[in-house]
Amino acid sequence: MSLIVQKFGGTSVGDIDRILRAAQKTKAEIERGNQVAVVVSAMSGVTNQLVEYCDAITANHDSREYDSVVASGEQVTAGLFALALQAHGIKARSWLGWQVPILTDMQHGRARIVDIPTEELNVSIANGEVPIIAGFQGRTEDWRVTTLGRGGSDTSAVALAAALRAERCDIYTDVDGVYTTDPRVVSRARKIPRIAFEEMLEMASVGAKVLQVRSVTMAMRHRVHVQVLSTFADEIGSDLPGTLIVDEDEIMEKALVSGLAFSRDDAKVTLEGIHNAPGLAAAIFRPLSDAGIIVDMIVQDVATGNDAITNMTFTVGKRDLAQTIRIFEKAKSDKTVDYRAMYSENDIVKISAIGVGMKTHSGVALKMFEVLAEKGINIEVISTSEIKVSVLIKDEYTELALRALHTAYGLDAEEKIDAAQA
Amino acid sequence: MSLIVQKFGGTSVGDIDRILRAAQKTKAEIERGNQVAVVVSAMSGVTNQLVEYCDAITANHDSREYDSVVASGEQVTAGLFALALQAHGIKARSWLGWQVPILTDMQHGRARIVDIPTEELNVSIANGEVPIIAGFQGRTEDWRVTTLGRGGSDTSAVALAAALRAERCDIYTDVDGVYTTDPRVVSRARKIPRIAFEEMLEMASVGAKVLQVRSVTMAMRHRVHVQVLSTFADEIGSDLPGTLIVDEDEIMEKALVSGLAFSRDDAKVTLEGIHNAPGLAAAIFRPLSDAGIIVDMIVQDVATGNDAITNMTFTVGKRDLAQTIRIFEKAKSDKTVDYRAMYSENDIVKISAIGVGMKTHSGVALKMFEVLAEKGINIEVISTSEIKVSVLIKDEYTELALRALHTAYGLDAEEKIDAAQA
Repeated sequence: MSLIVQKFGGTSVGDIDRILRAAQKTKAEIERGNQVAVVVSAMSGVTNQLVEYCDAITANHDSREYDSVVASGEQVTAGLFALALQAHGIKARSWLGWQVPILTDMQHGRARIVDIPTEELNVSIANGEVPIIAGFQGRTEDWRVTTLGRGGSDTSAVALAAALRAERCDIYTDVDGVYTTDPRVVSRARKIPRIAFEEMLEMASVGAKVLQVRSVTMAMRHRVHVQVLSTFADEIGSDLPGTLIVDEDEIMEKALVSGLAFSRDDAKVTLEGIHNAPGLAAAIFRPLSDAGIIVDMIVQDVATGNDAITNMTFTVGKRDLAQTIRIFEKAKSDKTVDYRAMYSENDIVKISAIGVGMKTHSGVALKMFEVLAEKGINIEVISTSEIKVSVLIKDEYTELALRALHTAYGLDAEEKIDAAQA
Repeated sequence: MSLIVQKFGGTSVGDIDRILRAAQKTKAEIERGNQVAVVVSAMSGVTNQLVEYCDAITANHDSREYDSVVASGEQVTAGLFALALQAHGIKARSWLGWQVPILTDMQHGRARIVDIPTEELNVSIANGEVPIIAGFQGRTEDWRVTTLGRGGSDTSAVALAAALRAERCDIYTDVDGVYTTDPRVVSRARKIPRIAFEEMLEMASVGAKVLQVRSVTMAMRHRVHVQVLSTFADEIGSDLPGTLIVDEDEIMEKALVSGLAFSRDDAKVTLEGIHNAPGLAAAIFRPLSDAGIIVDMIVQDVATGNDAITNMTFTVGKRDLAQTIRIFEKAKSDKTVDYRAMYSENDIVKISAIGVGMKTHSGVALKMFEVLAEKGINIEVISTSEIKVSVLIKDEYTELALRALHTAYGLDAEEKIDAAQA
C-alpha cells in the first residue's frame, strides 16, 4: 500500500461543489488501494481578501498578526475538505499547522519549515483516517502561527510527502500538467509526461507558473516524486496523466530541449560609457543587492575599441526598474559609478530553451540564434547555463519566436487539433 | 490601575473602518489609566457564511471539523484588531483559543469552558501589551478546536473577566444598553442604568436580545460586573453610559418592575378532554423531553367540573410545534395519552414584567391583569416566578399591551423626544 500526498490549490477548492469534486479524487485514490494525505490551499480569492484587510489597516503590519489572519483561509478549507470526505463515506480529520505540528522558523510571512514530526499523522493514517492538512501554515517554537509565503501550500505538500515518505506528491491544479510552452501562445504545445527537477526549476523560474520554485527545490532535495495534474479532468493520480517531476536519471530518453519558457517580468537597463576599472561590477551591483533588487542577465561589452570605456547591460524585475534608475542617478551624482548615459527598456521578453540533454549535446544555442535570425528577430542579450539558453528580444516578437523555436526543437504535437473542431 | 475586559460583537467589527473605530475605544480606556484585554467576535456575516459552507456539504457534520472551520472567523478579527491597535500606537497581540489556552470540554459546537490559565496573558498585560482574544473558541485537552455555541463570545469575555479578576466586562454592541422594553415598540422606553443579574437573565431569556443567557449566568456566578454599551456612541466604558449588570444588593433603589420583555418565539398547544390520572403530566411531557423540546408555560385546568377529565395547555418553541403535534398524534394512536382534541396556536406573544422588587412587594401581577382587562385583552395563560409575571396573549395586542403596561408600571421616560425632531 502506497501513501500518496494530494495537494489541491485554490481554484480546486474554490467553492463547495469543487471541494466535493476534489474529495472524489481522494476517494478514487483510496479505492485504488492507496493511503492518502491531503494538503489544501485557501478557497480562491480568500487569501487576497485577508491580505487586503491587513493592508487596509496599516501598510507596515506586524507579520505575526498578518500570519494569524491569513492562515485562517486554509483552516476553513481543511475542515470543509474533511467534511466532504466524510460525506463521501471516508474517515477524515483536519490538521492545522500547529496541530501537526509543522514547525517553522520565526520569519513570519515567509517562514521556512524546520521539522515535521509525523508521529500523530502516522497514527491517524494507520487508523484508516485521511489527514487533511492546512497548507501554507505552521507554527514557531513559541506557538505563534506562521505562513510560508506565496505558493506555500505546494511547499507544505512536498515537505509532508518527504516527512511521510510518500510514494508521490500529486499537485492538483487548474492545468493538467507542464507543457512544452504556453498552449495559449503556441497551439501545438504538448504536455510533457516526465520532466527533470532541474528542468522544472528553470521552467518555473522563467515563467511557467505551475509550481513554485521553492517546492521544486525541496522536492529535488528530498527526492520527492511530484506530479502536476488537473482537478478538473476525470483521471486520478495513479493513472499518471499529468506531468511527473523526477530525477534526471529516471528519464530514459532525454530530449535536447524539453520546453520553452518565457517571461515578460523583466526590464533591461544599459549603462553606457562607463570608465572601466577593477571593481566596477561590484560597484554597480552592490547598491542593487543592498536594495534587495535581483539582477538576472548581465552583459558587459567594450563598445568603442577603447578598453577604458565599457557598457553594462542587465535585467531587473519590471517593478524594480524605477528604483534601479533612481539608484544609478544617485550613483552618477555621487560619482560612485561614472557613466555617460543610462537607457532602460520595458517592452522586452526573455525566452528560454530548457533541457537536461544540453549537458551532453551542443548546438541548442546555435539553433536558437539561427532560427531567430531567419525570422529577422534581433537578440539583445544572451545568457546560458548548463541546461538553459536564454535570449532577450523585443516583446512584440514573442509569439513569432516561440512558434518558430517550438517547431525547430521538434516540440510540436504530432497532430494539431483545430480549435474550431475540438 | 484597573483591568477592563472589552468585548466587541460582530457589527462592532463588521468592516475595517469599524475595527479601527472599536480600537479607538480601547485606546481611550487605556488613556484613562486602565489596563485592557479585548475579546472579539467574527465580522458580522462571517460566521453565518462558514456555517452555510458546512451545511452545504452535509447536514450531519462532524462537529469537530465544524468547530475548526467556524472558529476561523474570530481568528481573523483578533489579528486585525491587534493590527488596528498597533496602528493607533498601542502594543497588542492576538491570542487564539488554543494559545491562551481557553480550555473547554469536548462537546464540540457547544463546548463549556473548563479552565483559563492566565499566566501568559498576565505576563503580556504586565508588559504593557493589550491581549486580543478570539472569542467563541477554545481547545480541548487533546488539542482540537472547540466553539462555545451562539453568543459564545459574550461567554468568553465574561469568563476571561473572571479569570483575569477584571474590574468590569464591557460588552460593546450595536445598542447602547438594556431598555425597559424594546424602544421600537414603545417609544417612551428608557435605558436602565443598573439592572440585577436575575432581572437581566429574565430579560435575556424572554426576548431582550442584548446578552446571551449563558454569559449572564456566568457573570452572576463569578460576580463579574458586566456593562452593555454601544460601540457607535462616543462615550467610552468608564463613563458608565450603558447598562451595568450587578448584584441585586448593589442596586440602591429597587424598582418594582424594571422592564417588560416579550417573545414571539412560542406556540401554544392545548390537549382537550384528557382522562386525568396519576402520572398524566409525566406521560405528556416525557416524550417532549426525550425529543429535546423545551416546554415553557404549563397550565392544567379542569374544564368540565368532572375531575376525571382535564385540559392541558402549554407552550413550546415555534420551530418545535410541528414535531410536538406529531408526537401527540402518535401518542393518541398509541393510546399513551388519551385526549379528545388537540389545538395549537402560533399567533401569540408572551409578555413579562420583570423586577427584583417583586420579591418584597405584591400587586405586580394584579396590575397586569387589570391593565390588560381595561384594554379588552384576553389572557390565555399566566405564569409567575419570584421576580417575573408572564402572560400569553394574542400577538396582535403586543404593542397595545406593552405601551399600557409600560405607563402603568411607571417606566415611561420623563420626556418623550419626538422622533421627527431628534
